[in-house]
Amino acid sequence: MPTSTMTHDPHQPRGLPRIVIIGAGFGGLEVVRGLNLAPAVVTVIDKTNHNLFQPLLYQVATAALAPSDIAVPVRSLFTDMPRVGTLMGEVTGVDTDNKLVHVKGVPDIPYDHLVLATGSVYSWFGHDDWARHAFTLKTLDQALALRSSLLAAFEWAESRTDPDEIRRLLTFVIVGGGPTGVEMAGAIAELAHATLARDFRRIRPNSARIVLCEGGPSLLAGFPDKLSAYARHHLEDLGVEVKTGAQVETVDRDGVVAGGERIFAANVLWAAGTAATPVAAWVGAETGKGNGIKIDEHCAVPGLDGVYAVGDCTYMEDAAGHRLPGVAPVAKQQGAHVAKVLMQRLIGEPLPQPFRYDDQGQLAMVGRSAAVADLGGRVKMTGLVGWLLWSVVHLFFLIGARNRITVYLNWVWAWLTYGRGARLITAIDPQVRRDFAHLDEIAAHRPVLPPAA
Amino acid sequence: MPTSTMTHDPHQPRGLPRIVIIGAGFGGLEVVRGLNLAPAVVTVIDKTNHNLFQPLLYQVATAALAPSDIAVPVRSLFTDMPRVGTLMGEVTGVDTDNKLVHVKGVPDIPYDHLVLATGSVYSWFGHDDWARHAFTLKTLDQALALRSSLLAAFEWAESRTDPDEIRRLLTFVIVGGGPTGVEMAGAIAELAHATLARDFRRIRPNSARIVLCEGGPSLLAGFPDKLSAYARHHLEDLGVEVKTGAQVETVDRDGVVAGGERIFAANVLWAAGTAATPVAAWVGAETGKGNGIKIDEHCAVPGLDGVYAVGDCTYMEDAAGHRLPGVAPVAKQQGAHVAKVLMQRLIGEPLPQPFRYDDQGQLAMVGRSAAVADLGGRVKMTGLVGWLLWSVVHLFFLIGARNRITVYLNWVWAWLTYGRGARLITAIDPQVRRDFAHLDEIAAHRPVLPPAA
Repeated sequence: MPTSTMTHDPHQPRGLPRIVIIGAGFGGLEVVRGLNLAPAVVTVIDKTNHNLFQPLLYQVATAALAPSDIAVPVRSLFTDMPRVGTLMGEVTGVDTDNKLVHVKGVPDIPYDHLVLATGSVYSWFGHDDWARHAFTLKTLDQALALRSSLLAAFEWAESRTDPDEIRRLLTFVIVGGGPTGVEMAGAIAELAHATLARDFRRIRPNSARIVLCEGGPSLLAGFPDKLSAYARHHLEDLGVEVKTGAQVETVDRDGVVAGGERIFAANVLWAAGTAATPVAAWVGAETGKGNGIKIDEHCAVPGLDGVYAVGDCTYMEDAAGHRLPGVAPVAKQQGAHVAKVLMQRLIGEPLPQPFRYDDQGQLAMVGRSAAVADLGGRVKMTGLVGWLLWSVVHLFFLIGARNRITVYLNWVWAWLTYGRGARLITAIDPQVRRDFAHLDEIAAHRPVLPPAA
Repeated sequence: MPTSTMTHDPHQPRGLPRIVIIGAGFGGLEVVRGLNLAPAVVTVIDKTNHNLFQPLLYQVATAALAPSDIAVPVRSLFTDMPRVGTLMGEVTGVDTDNKLVHVKGVPDIPYDHLVLATGSVYSWFGHDDWARHAFTLKTLDQALALRSSLLAAFEWAESRTDPDEIRRLLTFVIVGGGPTGVEMAGAIAELAHATLARDFRRIRPNSARIVLCEGGPSLLAGFPDKLSAYARHHLEDLGVEVKTGAQVETVDRDGVVAGGERIFAANVLWAAGTAATPVAAWVGAETGKGNGIKIDEHCAVPGLDGVYAVGDCTYMEDAAGHRLPGVAPVAKQQGAHVAKVLMQRLIGEPLPQPFRYDDQGQLAMVGRSAAVADLGGRVKMTGLVGWLLWSVVHLFFLIGARNRITVYLNWVWAWLTYGRGARLITAIDPQVRRDFAHLDEIAAHRPVLPPAA
């Protein structure tokens, strides 16, 4: 290769300590931000090329927002940070003895300090085969597959003649009554009962059945009872069947069995329990509940030199002995703390005070003009006020001015028209998936012919 | 099925004539628009659920626009036209004797009048195996696969060590010097040399090689020589290697052989010849050049009762005996004409004057602040003036106020920052393609268990 294609190589730093961060989510990015001026070479590794604003992912899955409204290329965030490099790749393991990160198809990445920030995955309560029959919602690709499936169900129903099959296509089951389940149930109800209501000629989209199954006694466990009850009533007003105390017993190609009832449904969304990504196994560390890697008061992994972990992949308790929740603020605050610890270490200063989570409260969207907010103490909001707060907070935390403007305009437009601007069915043609498969070949391929003279 | 899920069925109309339109592109939609007040039941069939604004598809493929900026759900266009129904499905043939359209997995659709508006596909000059190694750009899915592949090439190059492989990943070949080839070459050059320039640490994106191969003597055949020459010079200024008179001899997994030169390239875009979709074979009609179905002066297919065809799938000559080009204005004007013919027939009035194409000129984008416009006679524009005209015309013809605003804002933002707002790599993980494959099962599936009691 002509040398002109290469600049300096951050993997071969000139004597600077090497910090490797695995995962470019809320936690990982916060670490990088805090290391802006650090005397170190930083490498961020992620499986995808983008940072994803997960709290709005359900709006991509329900056609309200475009993927690019809530995702930004990881490396575009570090354009002006020449010592920060980005690597798109899949980590397969960590060698803590030799301080190396193994990445699929790439030479090992050496580190002096390592931060694990890989987040969580959905757990299937021991029924991994259920994954074949249900969608989950963690990545952009999953959101796009779900969006295509939701919209295609209406399209297919319009052209079918078997009443049972039409009914099955127009039944949507959401498993799990946490924020994601509540948000998705409300959004699907609005899609069916408002956006699509007048666009079909044979089926009636507003006859669609939307069932939200929660195994526990109430929705939004962890929110005050009053807010849980509000969410339930509002969803029921939107036409959602809310089934609490309805443990899911089966998920199969016909739908689900929940609370003893067989529900025939083409689309099942799994939004139940999550578990930490299995990073603890990479480094051979101890785990707590939900497979989270145990970390100390500085988010370091005990017994390992220079290994830290933040966010959903960790297990940490607050002063009262409760596990910190798997939410963005925890990940961000832990990320900022690790950056501070690393910075102090790099410049030889004493460590900061131990990490303490500053809980600012929690929010959940229930539907158009309706959200719940629990800001601690006695400050609780519902309805339009909660919804405005929810909107402002989410716009504020979005990354990038362009995305803020686009999301804001989309919301205003949707509020005025009930429209959803991204009602596109994509990648459902097997022929097209072959185009994407062609990419695998490009990724794997090295020239077989001798180079041209 | 409870009767409440069904409204009236346009496939079982109450005595009204049935008009079926296959294809929801420029031509097909124009037919429906003209039939707004017709005493007929209209069914539009398309393989996808959206109308696509093809002239801006290259901007989706190069990460400047989101898919939803240039596509709208077909059925959302007919919300207020209760006699117009939409069917997402794949047409497999037409029975002209019994006046039936065969659609995969759906009962036959009867028609009294049929309009074929299925557009064109890329032709491989007898080398169909080349399709496995090159991208084309006709559908949203193809644009997304290409976008992922272009962006992934830079990501993979950043982590590779073999100089030949890095060079191959950073080489992009575009075959065909028509508007699409010119637009893509300019856009990839800007992506590599401006947008991505400072985002990588090991590779230098602005060392990327972008080669535009055209078999003929000049770019933009059909445009005046002065404009072709301008396009060439401007592309060369952007760093594109323009090879005219360079016939492509091979397309394989290593790249291409063009004009005798072997070019190693991971990404090859095929933007060379197009051919009509094979609708002539469906109805057993005569074809002209490029496999276009021959139509008469009212866009009717000779020898068949009530069958019309419009747009890229047709073959029609102008007064001078030249084939009408495969461009949007031809399709739209033919579509409007067929609507008029059908309307007159339905109300028993005499047919309109024979169709005549009103050529308003042609436009092609070369790059930032540079386009060429040939408005007939002596009116020719280049550079910023051509670009402004190009922008205004494309915004004007986009469907939907929301899309116009979004595209306009994206262009302003891109012009100010060189940024591209949709730099996302999606659907490259085989695991995700399995999620999409799950959709096939939903589509094909009928319940196997007895309905619940």
